Amino acid sequence: MSENTTENDQNDTFDNGSTNHEKVAVTEMGVPFRRVTLTNGEVHDLYDTSGPQGCNPREGLPPGRAAWIAAREARGDTNFSQMHYARQGVITEEMRFVAIRENMDPEFVRKEIAEGRAIIPANKKHPELEPMIIGRNFLVKVNSNIGNSAVSSSIEDEVEKLRWSLRWGADTVMDLSTGHDIHETREWILRNSPVPIGTVPLYQALERVNGDVGKLNIDLFLDVLREQAEQGVDYFTIHAGIRLAHVPLTADRITGIVSRGGSIMAQWCLIHHTESFLYTEFDRICELMKEYDISFSLGDGLRPGCIADANDAAQFAELETLGELTKIAWKHDVQVMIEGPGHVPVNKIQENMDRQLADCHEAPFYTLGPLVVDISPGYDHMASAIGAAIIGSQGCAMLCYVTPKEHLGLPNKEDVKQGMIAYKIAAHAADVAKGHPGSQDRDDALSRARFEFRWEDQFNLAIDPETARAYHDETLPAQAAKTAHFCSMCGPKFCSMRITQDIRDYARKGMDEMSEKFVESGGEVYLPSS
Amino acid sequence: MSENTTENDQNDTFDNGSTNHEKVAVTEMGVPFRRVTLTNGEVHDLYDTSGPQGCNPREGLPPGRAAWIAAREARGDTNFSQMHYARQGVITEEMRFVAIRENMDPEFVRKEIAEGRAIIPANKKHPELEPMIIGRNFLVKVNSNIGNSAVSSSIEDEVEKLRWSLRWGADTVMDLSTGHDIHETREWILRNSPVPIGTVPLYQALERVNGDVGKLNIDLFLDVLREQAEQGVDYFTIHAGIRLAHVPLTADRITGIVSRGGSIMAQWCLIHHTESFLYTEFDRICELMKEYDISFSLGDGLRPGCIADANDAAQFAELETLGELTKIAWKHDVQVMIEGPGHVPVNKIQENMDRQLADCHEAPFYTLGPLVVDISPGYDHMASAIGAAIIGSQGCAMLCYVTPKEHLGLPNKEDVKQGMIAYKIAAHAADVAKGHPGSQDRDDALSRARFEFRWEDQFNLAIDPETARAYHDETLPAQAAKTAHFCSMCGPKFCSMRITQDIRDYARKGMDEMSEKFVESGGEVYLPSS
Repeated sequence: MSENTTENDQNDTFDNGSTNHEKVAVTEMGVPFRRVTLTNGEVHDLYDTSGPQGCNPREGLPPGRAAWIAAREARGDTNFSQMHYARQGVITEEMRFVAIRENMDPEFVRKEIAEGRAIIPANKKHPELEPMIIGRNFLVKVNSNIGNSAVSSSIEDEVEKLRWSLRWGADTVMDLSTGHDIHETREWILRNSPVPIGTVPLYQALERVNGDVGKLNIDLFLDVLREQAEQGVDYFTIHAGIRLAHVPLTADRITGIVSRGGSIMAQWCLIHHTESFLYTEFDRICELMKEYDISFSLGDGLRPGCIADANDAAQFAELETLGELTKIAWKHDVQVMIEGPGHVPVNKIQENMDRQLADCHEAPFYTLGPLVVDISPGYDHMASAIGAAIIGSQGCAMLCYVTPKEHLGLPNKEDVKQGMIAYKIAAHAADVAKGHPGSQDRDDALSRARFEFRWEDQFNLAIDPETARAYHDETLPAQAAKTAHFCSMCGPKFCSMRITQDIRDYARKGMDEMSEKFVESGGEVYLPSS
Repeated sequence: MSENTTENDQNDTFDNGSTNHEKVAVTEMGVPFRRVTLTNGEVHDLYDTSGPQGCNPREGLPPGRAAWIAAREARGDTNFSQMHYARQGVITEEMRFVAIRENMDPEFVRKEIAEGRAIIPANKKHPELEPMIIGRNFLVKVNSNIGNSAVSSSIEDEVEKLRWSLRWGADTVMDLSTGHDIHETREWILRNSPVPIGTVPLYQALERVNGDVGKLNIDLFLDVLREQAEQGVDYFTIHAGIRLAHVPLTADRITGIVSRGGSIMAQWCLIHHTESFLYTEFDRICELMKEYDISFSLGDGLRPGCIADANDAAQFAELETLGELTKIAWKHDVQVMIEGPGHVPVNKIQENMDRQLADCHEAPFYTLGPLVVDISPGYDHMASAIGAAIIGSQGCAMLCYVTPKEHLGLPNKEDVKQGMIAYKIAAHAADVAKGHPGSQDRDDALSRARFEFRWEDQFNLAIDPETARAYHDETLPAQAAKTAHFCSMCGPKFCSMRITQDIRDYARKGMDEMSEKFVESGGEVYLPSS
C-alpha cells in the first residue's frame, strides 16, 4: 500500500504514545491509513478509523461525500441505497473507497453488496462519513455503544466517548441515548463522526408517548425515523422480527426477554393481541430507508440473556422471521444486517452462525459478544471477546463490543478502551483465522521485531503502544534496555531468543558443512540423526 | 453437595469482599469447598483452591496426606505413583479426595488414571497437598507461574504471589525461579502450597554449570531432580522431546525456539552433535520419578513463538517424540501430561488437540494459552484466553495462564489477578462447553439472581465479587440501589427485565385464559397467532 499513498496535509502524529505513527491518506479519494515506520525502514499502513484529526467539534468534520451525493440528487435518483446502485452494475464512490481501504477489487465489493452479503451503511445526509463495509468477506468490524441514559451522562461526554471509541478502532458507533436532549446529542455525534452511526429509534418513539408502550404506532414511529434520517443516521436497529406467537416461547426462560427494544415490542404485541406495526408495516419502513440509504440492523429482540436460554425456540423463531424481512427489504434494494446474541456457550456458537446464514440468506451477521459464561460480571468484555473471536472466525461480520461494566453500570472512558481493545483482538483473531489477505502481516512484523529485540517496533505495532511501552518500562525502565538483546523475563543467561540466534548460526553453519560432506561422499541421503 | 458437608473448625469468612462466602470442608477427608449462601436461601458449594486459611507461613500448612503416605511406606512400597496403584485396582485416598472434589465416581477416577487419561500430581514429600486431578473428563484446570529471575523479585514476594494465585483459583503453580536462592524459595513455596507445584529443573541444573550449556549431563541433572524431589515438587517439566534432527527444522521460523528449556537442550544437542541426555537416559529419570510419585510434564521445547510458526514440522516432530516418551514413562507407571503451545491462530487450534490425543495416546494436554494473535502485548492475557477457551472446549486438560505483562516484563500482583481471572473464565467456558456435570449451575444461579434483581447474590456468585460490587456502586452508589428493581444501564422506564416480568405475568395469564377457552371450545388446537 505504501507506494500509492502520500502524506496528508495535516500530517499529524498519532496521539497514542507512539513515536512514529502518522496519519496518511491515499491520494485518489482521501482513504485514511495510519502509517507505522519501523526502525529497520519497513513501513506498515494500518486500517484507521480515527477520522480527520484536529477538527473543531463545533464545526464538525469536512463533508467528504457531499459532491458524490449532490451528483446523484442532481440526476433525480430516488433510491439512494448502495444495494440499488450495485444491482444496476454501478460501482459507487463509496464502493471504490472501501475497496482501497480493504485492499480488495471494487467489482468484488459491488458484487457482495448486490447479493446482500455486505453492506455500506451510508446515509446521504451523513456526508462526513468515511465509507466502510460490513460483510464476512471483508475485515471483521467492531461496534462501540455510547449514549446517555435517564440515570447519568451528558452531551459533551458522549461526543468525547465517540472520539475515544474511534481512537481505539471502533468501526461503527451506536448512539443508545434514552434520556433528554437525544436529538441534540445525536446531531453532535453525527457531525463529528467519520464512521457510520446506528440508533434504536424505538427509544425515542417511546419517549414521545411518555413510556406508554400501548400508544406506540407506525405513524409516530415513521415520524421518528424521518427525524433521525434527516440528521444522517446510517443504520437503524428495528425489532420487527418479534411476532405475537414468539412471546409465549420466552415464558420459561431464566432471563426472559433482555433486549430493551424486544421487551417493548413484545409488550405491545400482548397489549394489542396482534402482530406488531413494525412487522405489518415493514414495507413503509423500507420506503423511507431507501430515500436516504439507511441500512437495517434487524434487531434480535428475543436474544438469550444467559447461556441457559441460548439457541432456544424463541431465538430461532425470531431469526426465521428476520430472514423473511430480509427478503422484503431486498425487494426495495434496502441494505440489511442481522443482529445476533448475546449469551451463548462455546459449543452452541456454530449453530448460530450456520442458521443465520441459512435463514437470513447470507446477510451480514452482527452479534453482541456472545458471552460464553455468565459468572464474570466486571470481566464480561473478556468472556464475550472469547465468543466474539469464535463467531467472527466462523463468518460473523461485525462484533458489538462489551465493556467491563456490562450488567453493572455505565462505562467510563477506561471501560470503553478496555472493551474496544478486547474486541479489536477478537476481530483480528477472526481475520487471521479466516486467512483474510494481509491480515497476518502486522503479527509477523511484530514477531520479527520481537525476535530481533527491536522493542520500539514491537510497541509501535501493538494495539496499544503506550501500555506496551509502560509495562516494559516497569521492569526495565532504562532507555538502554529498549535496545538490550535480552528481555526482562529471563535475563541474559536464559534468553531463548539469544540462544536461538546462536543455534541458527550453528545450524546453518552445520548444514553447510554437512552439505559439503554430502557432495564429497557422492550424494547419499544424509540424516543428521536417527 | 450441601448435604454431606459441615462447617470447618476455622469457619473463615472468605477474603474477597464477599459478605457471605465461607470455607467449608467435607467431613470425611477435609475436601475443601467455598460455600456461597444466597439471599433466597440457596447454597452453592464451589470448588476451592485457597487452602487452609490463617496459617503462619513459617510453620507451613498442616500435612494432611502424611498418614496416607506413611502407611504406604510402612508396607514397603517402592513405586508410589498414583498410576501404579490405579493399575493394580487400588483406589487411593488421593483418588477418593478428588472424586469428592469433582463430584465423580472414585472408580471412574481410578480408571482414568490407570489408562493415562488423567493424573494426580502428588509427590509423597508434599504432604500439605490437597489432591487435584488433571484430565479432560474432569474440570479444566489453570496453572499460574511464579518465580524470581536474575532481574528482580524476592522470596517473600514469591510466597505472597503463591497465595495470591490461589486466592484467584490457581489449580497448580509452577515455580520458574532462575536466580539465587532458588532452593530456599522453593522450600517456602512447597511448605505453604495446598496445590501441586511444578518446576523446570533444567534451570537449576544450568545454574550449577554457571550457564555453560555444554557441561550439562545426566548425572548432574539427576542430582538436581533428587534435590527437588526431596523438597516435594509434584511435577517436572522435562524437555526430553527435542531430538538433534528437530533442531534444523526451526531454522527458518520467524521466532526460532522460544522455550527457555527448549533452546538450552537444542544448543546442547548441537554442541555435542548427539541426542540429548534427557532423551537417551529417559528411563533413569522415570526410575527417580516413581520413587516419589512425581509426574512428567513433557516440555514442548519447540512450541511456536508466533502464529506464523504454529503447527510446523518442528512442533509436530517433537510432539511425536513426546508420544514415544509417554509410552516409556507408562512402562514405569509414571504419570504424564504433555505441554503444548503457545501461539496458534484460531483456525489451527483443533489440529493441535487432535494430534496431541493421537500422538500422545490421550495423555492430558497442558497448553500455554495459546495466543491467537501477536499484536496484543499488554493484553496477551486476553488474546491467549481466547485460544485457551477454544482448546479447553476441545479437550485440553490444563491451561497455563498468561498475564498482561507477557513478552514485556515480570507480573505484579494485579497482573497475576488479571491473568488468573481471564483463565478462570476460559476454563469455565470450556467446562460448560463440554457439558461437565453441574458446571453450568453457578451461571444459572447468577442469571436467576440477575433476572430477579438480587444484586448481592450476583456479586457473590461472580468470579470477583469485590470488583463486580465496586463497578455497580460507581454508577448507583446508594445501598438502596442494590435492591432496586432496575439496573443502572437503562433506568426504570427501559428496564427489559421489569417489562419481561410484566410479559411473563401477562403471557401466563393469557395462556391460562386461552387454556380455559380451549377446554370450553371442545379441545381444538389453539395457536395464539399465525
